[in-house]
Amino acid sequence: MSSGILGWAKIFLTLNFVQNTLLKLYHTKILAKAKISITVNRNHGKNAMSQNAPESQDSHTTRHAVAKLDARLGQMVKVLDHGFVRVIDYMGDDNAVVQAARVSYGRGTKTASDDQALINYLMRHHHNTPFEMCVIKFHIKLPIFVARQWIRHRTASVNEYSARYSIMGNDYYVPERKELKPQSLSNRQGRDGNIHDEDAKEIEKLLQSRSQQAYDDYQKLLNEDSDGNEINHNRHGLSRELARMVLPLNYYTEWYWSCNLHNLLHFLQLRLDAHAQYEIRVYAEVMYDVVKDWVPMTAAAFEKFRKEAINLSKDMLTALFMLVKAQPSDVIAYLEQNNTYSLSKREIREVANIYARETHGNI
Amino acid sequence: MSSGILGWAKIFLTLNFVQNTLLKLYHTKILAKAKISITVNRNHGKNAMSQNAPESQDSHTTRHAVAKLDARLGQMVKVLDHGFVRVIDYMGDDNAVVQAARVSYGRGTKTASDDQALINYLMRHHHNTPFEMCVIKFHIKLPIFVARQWIRHRTASVNEYSARYSIMGNDYYVPERKELKPQSLSNRQGRDGNIHDEDAKEIEKLLQSRSQQAYDDYQKLLNEDSDGNEINHNRHGLSRELARMVLPLNYYTEWYWSCNLHNLLHFLQLRLDAHAQYEIRVYAEVMYDVVKDWVPMTAAAFEKFRKEAINLSKDMLTALFMLVKAQPSDVIAYLEQNNTYSLSKREIREVANIYARETHGNI
Amino acid sequence: MSSGILGWAKIFLTLNFVQNTLLKLYHTKILAKAKISITVNRNHGKNAMSQNAPESQDSHTTRHAVAKLDARLGQMVKVLDHGFVRVIDYMGDDNAVVQAARVSYGRGTKTASDDQALINYLMRHHHNTPFEMCVIKFHIKLPIFVARQWIRHRTASVNEYSARYSIMGNDYYVPERKELKPQSLSNRQGRDGNIHDEDAKEIEKLLQSRSQQAYDDYQKLLNEDSDGNEINHNRHGLSRELARMVLPLNYYTEWYWSCNLHNLLHFLQLRLDAHAQYEIRVYAEVMYDVVKDWVPMTAAAFEKFRKEAINLSKDMLTALFMLVKAQPSDVIAYLEQNNTYSLSKREIREVANIYARETHGNI
Amino acid sequence: MSSGILGWAKIFLTLNFVQNTLLKLYHTKILAKAKISITVNRNHGKNAMSQNAPESQDSHTTRHAVAKLDARLGQMVKVLDHGFVRVIDYMGDDNAVVQAARVSYGRGTKTASDDQALINYLMRHHHNTPFEMCVIKFHIKLPIFVARQWIRHRTASVNEYSARYSIMGNDYYVPERKELKPQSLSNRQGRDGNIHDEDAKEIEKLLQSRSQQAYDDYQKLLNEDSDGNEINHNRHGLSRELARMVLPLNYYTEWYWSCNLHNLLHFLQLRLDAHAQYEIRVYAEVMYDVVKDWVPMTAAAFEKFRKEAINLSKDMLTALFMLVKAQPSDVIAYLEQNNTYSLSKREIREVANIYARETHGNI
Repeated sequence: MSSGILGWAKIFLTLNFVQNTLLKLYHTKILAKAKISITVNRNHGKNAMSQNAPESQDSHTTRHAVAKLDARLGQMVKVLDHGFVRVIDYMGDDNAVVQAARVSYGRGTKTASDDQALINYLMRHHHNTPFEMCVIKFHIKLPIFVARQWIRHRTASVNEYSARYSIMGNDYYVPERKELKPQSLSNRQGRDGNIHDEDAKEIEKLLQSRSQQAYDDYQKLLNEDSDGNEINHNRHGLSRELARMVLPLNYYTEWYWSCNLHNLLHFLQLRLDAHAQYEIRVYAEVMYDVVKDWVPMTAAAFEKFRKEAINLSKDMLTALFMLVKAQPSDVIAYLEQNNTYSLSKREIREVANIYARETHGNI
Repeated sequence: MSSGILGWAKIFLTLNFVQNTLLKLYHTKILAKAKISITVNRNHGKNAMSQNAPESQDSHTTRHAVAKLDARLGQMVKVLDHGFVRVIDYMGDDNAVVQAARVSYGRGTKTASDDQALINYLMRHHHNTPFEMCVIKFHIKLPIFVARQWIRHRTASVNEYSARYSIMGNDYYVPERKELKPQSLSNRQGRDGNIHDEDAKEIEKLLQSRSQQAYDDYQKLLNEDSDGNEINHNRHGLSRELARMVLPLNYYTEWYWSCNLHNLLHFLQLRLDAHAQYEIRVYAEVMYDVVKDWVPMTAAAFEKFRKEAINLSKDMLTALFMLVKAQPSDVIAYLEQNNTYSLSKREIREVANIYARETHGNI
Repeated sequence: MSSGILGWAKIFLTLNFVQNTLLKLYHTKILAKAKISITVNRNHGKNAMSQNAPESQDSHTTRHAVAKLDARLGQMVKVLDHGFVRVIDYMGDDNAVVQAARVSYGRGTKTASDDQALINYLMRHHHNTPFEMCVIKFHIKLPIFVARQWIRHRTASVNEYSARYSIMGNDYYVPERKELKPQSLSNRQGRDGNIHDEDAKEIEKLLQSRSQQAYDDYQKLLNEDSDGNEINHNRHGLSRELARMVLPLNYYTEWYWSCNLHNLLHFLQLRLDAHAQYEIRVYAEVMYDVVKDWVPMTAAAFEKFRKEAINLSKDMLTALFMLVKAQPSDVIAYLEQNNTYSLSKREIREVANIYARETHGNI
Repeated sequence: MSSGILGWAKIFLTLNFVQNTLLKLYHTKILAKAKISITVNRNHGKNAMSQNAPESQDSHTTRHAVAKLDARLGQMVKVLDHGFVRVIDYMGDDNAVVQAARVSYGRGTKTASDDQALINYLMRHHHNTPFEMCVIKFHIKLPIFVARQWIRHRTASVNEYSARYSIMGNDYYVPERKELKPQSLSNRQGRDGNIHDEDAKEIEKLLQSRSQQAYDDYQKLLNEDSDGNEINHNRHGLSRELARMVLPLNYYTEWYWSCNLHNLLHFLQLRLDAHAQYEIRVYAEVMYDVVKDWVPMTAAAFEKFRKEAINLSKDMLTALFMLVKAQPSDVIAYLEQNNTYSLSKREIREVANIYARETHGNI
């Protein structure tokens, strides 16, 4: 490295130092203070919500950053045979969720509770707006039939590669042989079981040859080869917006897809589900990994109260309770003594209350 | 007709009579009264917006209906070679727009103005919410590549035929020969010019044979013929969610599509445009015909202030004005004497004001 | 009634007869046929979703109507001391939900199942889009502090009475004395317990006198009395957009509010909840009554799988299961013999599966 | 500063150095390369949109930052007497708009054009989705009557200070005396003209005393003084959710408000307008200043093609053209010679075409 660059680097470092030191201070001392101030019981006659906000006293000049997500920025994670997911940019973190929730659900009136508990509460009771304060932008490459399912989630912003303006690449999806399955007998929309290996090989061969043939047709219609040269000088190519019609649904497209955290979790809830088609589920899994790095507390709450939650009708639960012989009064004691699942006191009380209410008509 | 049915019909008629007479009265006498009451200048100290509303005094028991649109309900209008558009249901009419606008933009404070002028004002100044009070539901059959453009309009409700649950029909789009055009040289996304008839025939043949071949592949993969019989008893068919991958983008799909009037007009604004792809424009044209039958006053305002409006930057307009030699003071007189375009007085005044402001810096 | 009107009525009745007879036939014979056709197992090679649709063969010329809701149209249901809710218009019914679901979730591939079961399935598994095919429009009068909570539901269309254009009416909310409660000790956002009657009387008096005083101030600022006469000829009134500032949050406003059924149910889920503020809950209750008249099957499914559903984290449920000593194999038998809650076979199987999975790690 | 902190700072600086150097390189050399690659005419047979993207080869580990906006983060800009606007966080910049547009509107098929021209094109032709790739989050303090107008923009995320959970602060809006104006005679919703100074003083006094009285009532109802002490030990306070009812609409509330750039510009378009109420316009003006610092190219395009654009019906424009005597063929020459407004060649051609089409029926 030349000394010229070093000189520049020094100035650069100095500026960075000021910036980052401020940021560090903000994250430690001042934020701690902000948490202490949460215990203050009343704040009227004062400047409502901005009074205790750390930013109001010590304006910081850098955005919040999440190191683990920063480390992922721009990196492609391969999905299927030619697809990928990569994070381009984001705004906010777990802290932004907490900050927004404290505004709406009261700071002045509560004792200090830890952020995870607050996020759990928001998640469990579907108080969704604080999660909208975080936004993420992905660049995704995916087969068209997957894109058609995906786009049904309307609460995202999308910019897709346009086959009216540009020529599609020659990338098509052929499933791994083990993924070639017959129609499920129990699930009307899914696949299950196995296809004989010989048959699977034939299917694979068919998919490959037809996809390639379609691309050859595409180029022939455009009258243009892969190097951009005219194929036949004596005829016009067909316009791109029409030529694309011959490409089958397993061809890949690409898009930028931006979504807030609330809507992203809704997407994941549906697409991580075992009934989602495998080809979209694998994308959801990669994106869920991203979410865990980005907002670990939110991801933990989501895991517990959405992804793994069990939603029963009142009647179904009550029917199950008929199998429990215990008195309501014994339930709390029992759960406390056998707390294999590390339930919080609040959760134990809530479980016991539901049991008491549904079986003995009182709480 | 048997007397039993006649007896039933009598009861039926009686009920209808009561219902419809009320409706008729509502539409004539009482509604007229409501309009007169609009001229009343102040209404405070009273029951604000509900005071003069006709419904508050004479509750009617039938929804507003638009005869011209009712006559269309369920009727298929053919689009392209195998597509169609048909109206299934709707809510509201021009009157609902006016009713909503009067609530927001004041009734008590204005002299009677006719509904068309009010709708024009709303349209011109992008006061969109009153148009949201009308909703329409279509059943549409369209090629997949068109559906992919269409679905980008996110503010609609859609239920699409699912190729995971059901088997796709053997309907594919092949353009008429005159629509097979080369890439436009002036418009990067469109098509323009002509292809030699011999070449067009060949393209048509290719599209047809490849589409049919794809459907044969589809059935082979499903291992099921058109009558639902297994083709080969010795092997499993591939699941529907995978087999569909071989179908090209010119295959037809179907959906129910519901949208409020404001968002429908935005859709039409973009898709009636000369730069929209022909294959979506023809759908927009059929839907626009429906809109004209449904809400004729709104359609007229849309035609004038959106579809045919010209949006210029201030600089572009001012540059044009340099070509006009007239004094601002002469403009109104000139426009009034040469009012070829039937501008309203308000419009003439507005045009003159813009001219005066942009050329002489005053109004 | 004069004979002239009678003559007119006859023509009118004849037209109605044709229209309604068609409608009746449609609803009975033809719709029945449509349901039978649902059992047909495959429809490829044919015109996919439109093939069996009744409308394609017998286009009807009237919209679906729900008699019970029609009977409510325009009728005001009083809420609080001066508020109301009334239905103005709507589109769709339970049948529209089923129709949309059958498109997406397959008709060709299922045996006939009754509509209620299908709607239950949609509700339970959050397949929301079919519910978007129904829309309703209300006219509502409500206190401003309630309107501020309500408007946070963004997925509705609203036209509110504008206090910039018009003069607000002199209607303000004073709670009944029994609703004047202290801050809840267990619920940080709610109220609970009782206030001494003497204190309540005083509060009531204060609310009344201050509200009336505010309206007097409002008129004084506007310089206009209740009859629209200038109060003081020697001064200008303040503009309406500023004068309104003196009105307190208990003043009533009005709006048209239109929403699809999916979003309406979400609104009701949150606002029927015991933790919702009483003053918005009473509106939700009236609207829920409307929903029961409008779409009774959807309302039943909502009651069971949303309103009364119990959402537990996996850990909470598993903890409860520790109290059940039964073997998984005994659960189905037990539930079938003690089916106090009329669970369907599917529900019993599901309950048993959850129990088996969570307690014995297998199903 | 202690040496311990210095040691920590060194490690910190080193990490920063690596990170930022990469960023700098990315912004200069590599991004330049990316732009050059834009001129490549065709890219089929290759990895479509990701092929030339700089991130695919040189994954960077820092988000894009806008120095001018970073400098504003957390800083309060005062608005009205007690309100403020401050930026908390953001995602994206002009570059993100261009990046998204290039995906949708084609990169392979265009020669290099500068980013401003592309952004102008997007803005003018309402290609809005690329602007959705930028998001910003504000913290805002504003009077309730302003919040009620503001919240009608539904496409934003909001977390508002809750008066059910917390006690409102004693901040209310009293307009400056010069802003106390009578109802406009020309604009039914606005204010215009002047109020005698004596009258204005009286209004000011009334607003102040009534607002203060309302807060005294509020505390009395809550039974709690400004220090959080009970006022009267012998009675219960009224719950917060009810006590707030006595506060008038000029009291301040606060919220976090997050919005993408497209929807923010729509908000600004409406709220910067001369017809918007002064009290919301002043917020819009501060936010527009933020936008200019954040995305200067987008702001310039917005200024030209939205904020200052003139939207005329075809008839209005044609009527104006009647005053122009020039031949269409002379218009281009004239505009080129008198190009006072620095129109681009494309704009001149477009103006001339509109003139020719509307006056002589051809282009």
